Amino acid sequence: MTNKPITIAIDAMGGDHAPQITVEGACRMSLETSANLLLIGNEVKINAELKKHTYNKERIKIVHTPDEITMEDSPRIAIREKPNASVLLAAKLLNEGKADAMVSAGSTGAVILSAAIHIERIPGVKRTALGTIYPTYNEQQRENIFSLILDIGANITNTPDDLVHFAYMGVSYKKKLMHVESPTVALLNIGAEEYKGNDTMKKAYQLLASRPDINFIGNIEGNDLVKGKADVVVAEGMIGNIAVKTMEGTVEAVKKLAKMALKGKLIWKFGMLCLSGGIKKIMKIANYEEYGGAPILGFNKIIIKSHGRSTARAFKNGIKVAIQAVTDDMIGIMRDSISQFESEKEK
Amino acid sequence: MTNKPITIAIDAMGGDHAPQITVEGACRMSLETSANLLLIGNEVKINAELKKHTYNKERIKIVHTPDEITMEDSPRIAIREKPNASVLLAAKLLNEGKADAMVSAGSTGAVILSAAIHIERIPGVKRTALGTIYPTYNEQQRENIFSLILDIGANITNTPDDLVHFAYMGVSYKKKLMHVESPTVALLNIGAEEYKGNDTMKKAYQLLASRPDINFIGNIEGNDLVKGKADVVVAEGMIGNIAVKTMEGTVEAVKKLAKMALKGKLIWKFGMLCLSGGIKKIMKIANYEEYGGAPILGFNKIIIKSHGRSTARAFKNGIKVAIQAVTDDMIGIMRDSISQFESEKEK
Repeated sequence: MTNKPITIAIDAMGGDHAPQITVEGACRMSLETSANLLLIGNEVKINAELKKHTYNKERIKIVHTPDEITMEDSPRIAIREKPNASVLLAAKLLNEGKADAMVSAGSTGAVILSAAIHIERIPGVKRTALGTIYPTYNEQQRENIFSLILDIGANITNTPDDLVHFAYMGVSYKKKLMHVESPTVALLNIGAEEYKGNDTMKKAYQLLASRPDINFIGNIEGNDLVKGKADVVVAEGMIGNIAVKTMEGTVEAVKKLAKMALKGKLIWKFGMLCLSGGIKKIMKIANYEEYGGAPILGFNKIIIKSHGRSTARAFKNGIKVAIQAVTDDMIGIMRDSISQFESEKEK
Repeated sequence: MTNKPITIAIDAMGGDHAPQITVEGACRMSLETSANLLLIGNEVKINAELKKHTYNKERIKIVHTPDEITMEDSPRIAIREKPNASVLLAAKLLNEGKADAMVSAGSTGAVILSAAIHIERIPGVKRTALGTIYPTYNEQQRENIFSLILDIGANITNTPDDLVHFAYMGVSYKKKLMHVESPTVALLNIGAEEYKGNDTMKKAYQLLASRPDINFIGNIEGNDLVKGKADVVVAEGMIGNIAVKTMEGTVEAVKKLAKMALKGKLIWKFGMLCLSGGIKKIMKIANYEEYGGAPILGFNKIIIKSHGRSTARAFKNGIKVAIQAVTDDMIGIMRDSISQFESEKEK
């Protein structure tokens, strides 16, 4: 990387608890980084929050804008009507080279649309992808218990080429941010055999299997996701979305059952108490928000979407991931591998 | 219904533990039904099993065939090479009017293919569907805590008309076999709004919403499945397959965690012991196999696919469901509602 200091554009107004948690997260990060953090949003509100925390004044700057997009706004309409909303301004600064990465806890739709308006895609990439990291019980004892799945809903359908691009994006992310040397890649499908699935999947299978720089392990099914069969799971947007939301819903159901036990018989309450240490341990692993939010991949700049209900700690970790991605030139690696695929494809 | 006695064709040789559990299940059922049960398969093996159990000789008959398709066989090849395999013979008997319904614990592929070869579809139906019943935590206090989702993998993609047919099939099943008076129907999609999803889903939404005899509640997302937002969940085959397998995988992961607790610290073991009554209760609900297997819908006859690892009790319940479906003329109701849709559609 260059020696130019890294600058992160932070959408201070995005998310359910903004600007409280966004400012607090940035303050915490400012104490342990040499990167510049631009807090984009309403100056008065941001300053009111800054007063509450200890932070490094050298690292934090405010970029004022009175406009913000709330979770209640329809992203499409809001983006047209509020061109200077904090999330749009963040994307604009990236495009102008005034920042290297952006972090937002705003609505996914608003973040993706803002990026699409202002930021160029990696050459060759036709569709960007929303990814998420989820914990697995790591049946195969991989280096890392987390898997990355993409796309989980930036698209409905995809082309085989899109899916190969997603694989390269996921591999770079896993390598650089989760330190897995040779991440395995799988395609989420209706069956394991290579002839399974729709035409896109069949073609994607062939393409992925033919790439020497992708450690492709073939198709996996829905029940393989939580097993952690692969470091990177590639899926068409609709499929990935339904899979991830189904996982979330099922985990939610288990939590409800645990709550019922706590309200139930005395012996159940006692049982839950005995297990509480173990449950806390699991919840800590399962709370993947603590690991830095979800990447939006395929743009020429790093974009991290933190959860709308992020804590200050989770939001700080989102900023940390963004800084690390810039430091390690994650985008450069994606660009190189995708451009190589594109050039070889045309032969 | 007619007064002709009901006859159920039972694939005695299909499943991981056949003919043991299939014969035992039929024996148990024979003691509480007036229906005739045809055990189709290897006479010698079936007789050896029959000797072990008490059963009503009036109710059970053997239809001998030496051929069987094992779980190891590729369904496509086996069906070509063994035209008299028990599962194919069962389907043939249905077609010839010698039986009213069939039950098999054989491989899903083999059962669907056998049916497709021998049994006609309900008029108007272009694609059959594989359904499954799954337990929900019934957030909305519906009459029944189970939901039925279809298709879960008989197809890859579907047309909007297919999805309407699936809705009618699901509604009839829920009404007749699960005694829900006005089952709610939802479409599994990437978002709740009616403009969400691929073209098939958008069109299916409009069609479903326009049908006065479908209690359509709109789109639901993956995380709504376990909540039990709808009695009947309609999905394209690929989507339904990934959703159901993801649910299964996540539940499996929770079981693994529970096992880990049992192997862990003494206090965890003790906690699990205190909770064991509650866990047993949940497992009993979650063990939906006990509720009669998965229907294959869209054929002109009733076909119940029991799990390959069914217990005798589960297999017996599959036969029971089949008898009830015939008694209540479930197929007739599907036929009527689908034919009404088809005729109104053409106007």
